[in-house]
Amino acid sequence: MIKAQKLATKEWFRDLRDQTIKIFLEIENSNSSPKKINKFQIKKWKRKLEQGKDTGGGTMAIMHGEIFEKVGVNISTVYGKFNSRFKKQVSGASKTGKFWASGISVVAHMKSPHIPSFHFNTRYIVTENSWFGGGMDMTPSFINVKNKNALHNNLEAMCNKHSKKYYKKFSKQCEEYFYLPHRDETRGDGGIFFDHLNTDKFDRDFSFVKDVGKSFLTIAPEIIYKDIDKKWSDKDKIRQKIKRGRYAEFNLLYDRGTRFGLETGGNIDAILMSMPPEAIWK
Amino acid sequence: MIKAQKLATKEWFRDLRDQTIKIFLEIENSNSSPKKINKFQIKKWKRKLEQGKDTGGGTMAIMHGEIFEKVGVNISTVYGKFNSRFKKQVSGASKTGKFWASGISVVAHMKSPHIPSFHFNTRYIVTENSWFGGGMDMTPSFINVKNKNALHNNLEAMCNKHSKKYYKKFSKQCEEYFYLPHRDETRGDGGIFFDHLNTDKFDRDFSFVKDVGKSFLTIAPEIIYKDIDKKWSDKDKIRQKIKRGRYAEFNLLYDRGTRFGLETGGNIDAILMSMPPEAIWK
Repeated sequence: MIKAQKLATKEWFRDLRDQTIKIFLEIENSNSSPKKINKFQIKKWKRKLEQGKDTGGGTMAIMHGEIFEKVGVNISTVYGKFNSRFKKQVSGASKTGKFWASGISVVAHMKSPHIPSFHFNTRYIVTENSWFGGGMDMTPSFINVKNKNALHNNLEAMCNKHSKKYYKKFSKQCEEYFYLPHRDETRGDGGIFFDHLNTDKFDRDFSFVKDVGKSFLTIAPEIIYKDIDKKWSDKDKIRQKIKRGRYAEFNLLYDRGTRFGLETGGNIDAILMSMPPEAIWK
Repeated sequence: MIKAQKLATKEWFRDLRDQTIKIFLEIENSNSSPKKINKFQIKKWKRKLEQGKDTGGGTMAIMHGEIFEKVGVNISTVYGKFNSRFKKQVSGASKTGKFWASGISVVAHMKSPHIPSFHFNTRYIVTENSWFGGGMDMTPSFINVKNKNALHNNLEAMCNKHSKKYYKKFSKQCEEYFYLPHRDETRGDGGIFFDHLNTDKFDRDFSFVKDVGKSFLTIAPEIIYKDIDKKWSDKDKIRQKIKRGRYAEFNLLYDRGTRFGLETGGNIDAILMSMPPEAIWK
């Protein structure tokens, strides 16, 4: 049973990766006067063997372009045993430490300071328990109420198709999660964030997770295209880079995904793919 | 007794701050064709009152110049009670949580990729116990064996005046401390690092701590002046910014000083003064 679920989720994350790359390439190369056609660089990586056994790996796709200053679209499927310290922290892993996890993670840092950064990921994790996690959120350098509303309206409508409780709960969790206590500020405009999602109906949860991905591929391009031709000044760009410093602070000080990656010996380039291309600390 | 020690250390850190600023200003403005005379900006900050009581604060001095791209010279004297979670982690604080701490912290990120970054700090901490901590280390963007040897020879000679054991012990601790496990690399060329230094002879320990400061003010200017006129390329500068990304990773993921500052509600600008002015993640 769980074998079919692993296969189905893994395949979906790969399909979604392919769709994301296709749509992002269209955006990147939609520029009316392109200097060159930009492409994603693909890098495969493997985790270290554990007692001679394969432990999975992943595929990174990264592009440095004119619209996307730096964008990463990563998928990975990893398995094996957590270390003795970490296994106590993961639901259903405290006894044997055995785990299986597959997911997709996307971070887009845009060249234009008028276009927000986007972060999206969804994952399926199996220990003695199994659950979905993920979400998407948006980090602008300038307040833009229209964009924020567009994001939240889209996510609310999508969530409501699955449960009337989801949007309220998951958007609140997002606000709480992407928060920098040392600066008493949120990382950005929020979005939705969920973890340990298991309603005992796999198909139902999986259908929601797929819809989160589809929402991301609707809303992100919409917001990007809206301001794609808007000019910016050096001052705007500096403001964006300072905001990116906060992004780096969040990822390294607090992000559980980063900690998970470091603890499980993931590929360091894949884990830190989310870091901004250029950041400033004044 | 401890009152005199608090006063003496606090005064020394302030004197050393004044000397550091004087010497760094001479370097900054030694440029044969200065565009303008650069200065330090001084900012005082206060910690929040605890039950109506003063809890100390500090003074930041920061300069953005032509030689020093970003340099901070901070002193602070803070006191009060650690929060209930943190007090268990600090020697002699588990009962009442009461502490007093004074120190100086210097981080210099140089414009030239040929000149290493310098980090120096010393502090005196009083709980039910009392001790000194601190050290200095150097982070180049390019391997430079002469600089590394100059640093270590200076520190070894200085340490040997106090104890034949210090250099070996403290340089090893520095190498272990400034290490990025996720990249399996050291932050830089090392130096010395010590903590919980208390030989039961305050004057002896204090004399060592003063000498660490004097060594810093000898060796850093020597290394800076050596390459002050050396030209660099855009490629060299990019390499430096990538190295600075590693610096940011270390500070946010592992540095105990950063964690201490965040846990004790220090001034956020002072705590993150050490962050590089511009960093790149490819």
